[in-house]
Amino acid sequence: MTAVTGNVIVGQSGGPTAVINSSLVGVFKTAKDRGARKVYGMVHGIQGLLEGRYVDLEKHIKNDLDIELLKRTPSAYLGSCRYKLPDISQDRAVYDKIFEILEKLEIEYFFYIGGNDSMDTIKKLSDYALLNGSKIRFMGVPKTIDNDLAVTDHTPGYGSAAKYIGAITKEVIRDGLVYDQQNVTILEIMGRNAGWLTGAAALAKCEDCPGPDMIFLPEIPFDVDDFMKKVAALHEKQKSVVVAVSEGVKTADGKYVCELTDGIDFVDAFGHKQLTGTARYLAEKINREVGCKTRAIEFNSLQRCASHIVSRVDITEAFQVGGAAVKAAHEGETGKMIILKRVSDDPYICVTDIYDVHKIANVEKKVPFEWINESGDYVTEDFVNYIKPLIQAELTPIMTDGLPRHLYYTDVEGEETI
Amino acid sequence: MTAVTGNVIVGQSGGPTAVINSSLVGVFKTAKDRGARKVYGMVHGIQGLLEGRYVDLEKHIKNDLDIELLKRTPSAYLGSCRYKLPDISQDRAVYDKIFEILEKLEIEYFFYIGGNDSMDTIKKLSDYALLNGSKIRFMGVPKTIDNDLAVTDHTPGYGSAAKYIGAITKEVIRDGLVYDQQNVTILEIMGRNAGWLTGAAALAKCEDCPGPDMIFLPEIPFDVDDFMKKVAALHEKQKSVVVAVSEGVKTADGKYVCELTDGIDFVDAFGHKQLTGTARYLAEKINREVGCKTRAIEFNSLQRCASHIVSRVDITEAFQVGGAAVKAAHEGETGKMIILKRVSDDPYICVTDIYDVHKIANVEKKVPFEWINESGDYVTEDFVNYIKPLIQAELTPIMTDGLPRHLYYTDVEGEETI
Repeated sequence: MTAVTGNVIVGQSGGPTAVINSSLVGVFKTAKDRGARKVYGMVHGIQGLLEGRYVDLEKHIKNDLDIELLKRTPSAYLGSCRYKLPDISQDRAVYDKIFEILEKLEIEYFFYIGGNDSMDTIKKLSDYALLNGSKIRFMGVPKTIDNDLAVTDHTPGYGSAAKYIGAITKEVIRDGLVYDQQNVTILEIMGRNAGWLTGAAALAKCEDCPGPDMIFLPEIPFDVDDFMKKVAALHEKQKSVVVAVSEGVKTADGKYVCELTDGIDFVDAFGHKQLTGTARYLAEKINREVGCKTRAIEFNSLQRCASHIVSRVDITEAFQVGGAAVKAAHEGETGKMIILKRVSDDPYICVTDIYDVHKIANVEKKVPFEWINESGDYVTEDFVNYIKPLIQAELTPIMTDGLPRHLYYTDVEGEETI
Repeated sequence: MTAVTGNVIVGQSGGPTAVINSSLVGVFKTAKDRGARKVYGMVHGIQGLLEGRYVDLEKHIKNDLDIELLKRTPSAYLGSCRYKLPDISQDRAVYDKIFEILEKLEIEYFFYIGGNDSMDTIKKLSDYALLNGSKIRFMGVPKTIDNDLAVTDHTPGYGSAAKYIGAITKEVIRDGLVYDQQNVTILEIMGRNAGWLTGAAALAKCEDCPGPDMIFLPEIPFDVDDFMKKVAALHEKQKSVVVAVSEGVKTADGKYVCELTDGIDFVDAFGHKQLTGTARYLAEKINREVGCKTRAIEFNSLQRCASHIVSRVDITEAFQVGGAAVKAAHEGETGKMIILKRVSDDPYICVTDIYDVHKIANVEKKVPFEWINESGDYVTEDFVNYIKPLIQAELTPIMTDGLPRHLYYTDVEGEETI
C-alpha cells in the first residue's frame, strides 16, 4: 500500500462518551502507522477550526502509556462543539475559510468523530470539496451514547453507557431494599427522543436482581394516570418499587412530563416558572397521591463520562471505527461514515463497513416498536439480547494513588493558531 | 483457645455502605472458624429481632464463592433499621422481650454493625445484661460512610465512598471542559453535619486534574453572598468552575441553604412549599445572577452503594473489624466497639483495638477546624493525607455477563420467626 504522505486532521463533536477518545486514538495511531506526516486535532471541533485553533497530536500522545491513558480518559480530549454548518448555498464564506485553513495545514484527510449532527458536517464539507475540485477526503467516525445513528448496528459509546446504567441500577435496586419500609424509586435516564439508554436499565434484571419493575421509553406516549395506577398496584404487593423513565417521555398531546404541573405553575426558588425533572415530578406526585417514601435519582452526566466502568467490547470498537475511517479515506473514500455490522449474536461478531453519510446525517434511529412490550412499560427480550454483547468485558482503569488516571489536559496546552 | 460453643447473632443497622456486608462476612467466618454452633442474622436489625425475625446465615453463605460475592454486595444484606431503644428505666418490657428471644435462640454473642445510633443499642443492651446477670456479650462493629464515629481513626465504609467521590469528581470535572462555553457545576455531596465525604472531593486534585475549585463543609457557616462573589470571580478567569458543597451547609443563623428561598416561597409542581436541593438552589441562583450555564449534580445514594468501585483497604478493614469483634467477645469483652488505630501513614499501618461503647454512642465526630483552610472554602493537605491511604487499591467486582455480580437476596428468603 502507498503511504499516507499528507497531513491528517481529526475533530470531536457533539456530546462526549466514555470512549470517544478511544476513537481519537484509533485515528491517530492508524494514521501514523500508515505514514501520515502530521496528525492535527481541531480544538473544539469545526467551531474551533474556524477560529484556526488546533493542536499537533504528537505533542500530546508521546508513547504507548499516553495511548492507554487517552483511551481511558473521559470527555472529548480535544474539546467538542455543537456547531451546524450553514447550507453551502447560503454562506460560501464559511466554507472558503475552512478550506483555506485546511490548505494551509496541508490537510489530505479530515476525520470527524460525532453523531448525526456531526455527520451533517461531513456531508456538507465533502459535497463542497467535490463541487470545488478539492482533493481532501472527509470521513465520519460514529459516536454517541444515545445509539440513535441510522444504518450502523449500534454506536460506540452506547455499550459503556448501557453497562454503567445496568451496573448502578442493580446497586440502586439493592439500596431500595435496605429498610423495612415501602418506597418507590424513579430513575431518570438520558435520551430525549430515543429510548436506547433507558431500555438498558433492563440489563439489571438477572439471576441476582429482579431488575426495574417498569421501563418507559420516549417512543411511547406516556399516560400519567395509567402510570400512577400501575405504580400504586406494584406498591400494594411489594416493598420496594423501582421504575426507569426516559428524561424525554411525553404525554399523548406531545407535552414533556417534566413540563407538567397539574395546572399549578411550578415556581422555583426565585419565583420564576421553570421545569422540574421528569423523575422529580413523578416522585413528588407518587409521594402525595400514593403516600409513600419516594426517591428521584437522575443518572446525570455520569452516563457519558463514567470511564471507570467501560465495556471492553465498546472501547475496542471505538478504536476500530477510528482506524477503519483512516483506512477507508486512504483507499479513496470520502463523504462516508464507518458503520458497525453485526455478523452474529452468539458468538458476537461485528465488523466495520462504510456507508454514504448523506443517508445518515440528521436521521434519528429510535427503538423499534416490536422491542417494546404491548403495555408499553418494558422492553422485550430481543432488546436485551441486542444490548448484552455490547457491555461485555472491561478495560481496567489505570489506577494511580487509588483513582483512575487520565491523560493530562488543559484547555490551552500546546494549542496553536493560524 | 476454648471454642465458641453457643450461638451468635449479628445485625446491620443505620444507612448502608458499599462494604457493610464485608463486616457481616467477617463476623460470620470468624465465628464459624472459632466453633460457633449457629450464626443467626437479624432481619432488619433490632427492629426485626423484636418481631422475632431472623435467618440462619449458613443457609445463605454456603461456600467461598458466596463469601466473595457477599463482600462485594452493596446495601445491608440482612436489611437495616433506624430504631432507637427506649431508656431501660422507661420501658423494661422491650428489653425483656429482646432477651427472651435471645435466650430462645441460645445466643451467647451479639454483634451489631452500625454507626453512633447503633452503638447506643449496644450500650443499652450490654448495660441491661449486666443489671440482670445475663451472660450474653454485646459488641459493636463500626460502619458508616459519614466517618463521624468518635475515637476510631476512621470508619469502614468511608474509604470506599471517598474513593467513589474522588473518581467521579475527576470525571465530572473533565466533562465540564468539553464545550468552549463557560459553565459552573455544583456537586452536592452527602454528610448532613460532618464534612468528611464532601472533603473527599479534594482527592480529585492530582497530576491529571485541577480538582474542584472550592469545597464547602457543614462545619463552617455558609455565607451565600460571599459564595456568589467567589464563584463570580472564578467565572471571570476560567471556563469551567466546579464547586463541591455538603448537602448540610447552613447559614450563620442556622438555616439550611436548601431551605433558603430569597423571600419567595418555593412551590413545587403541586403547589406545596418544599425544599429544593442545596446544589439546585445554588446553581439556579448562579444561573440568574452570574448568568452562565450551570449544572447541579447530586451524587445521591450511589455514595453508599457503589460497590463496583470499592477501596481494597476499606473492604479489608471492614472484614477485620467484624472478625476482631468476635475475637474480643470470645475473650470476654462486652459493651465495647472495635476501633481502628492508625499506627503510621507511610507506610499505612492500621490495627484494631477495643473501646468502651459508652464513650462512642451518640457522639458525632466532625472535621477538625485545622483541616479546613482559613477562607473556609477548601480542605487542607493534612485532610487529604488522612484520606489517601483509605482509598488505596481495589477489590475487583466478580463480573457476570458484563455486570458486577452480587449475592442473591430476597426480603423473605429463608427468613424464620419465633
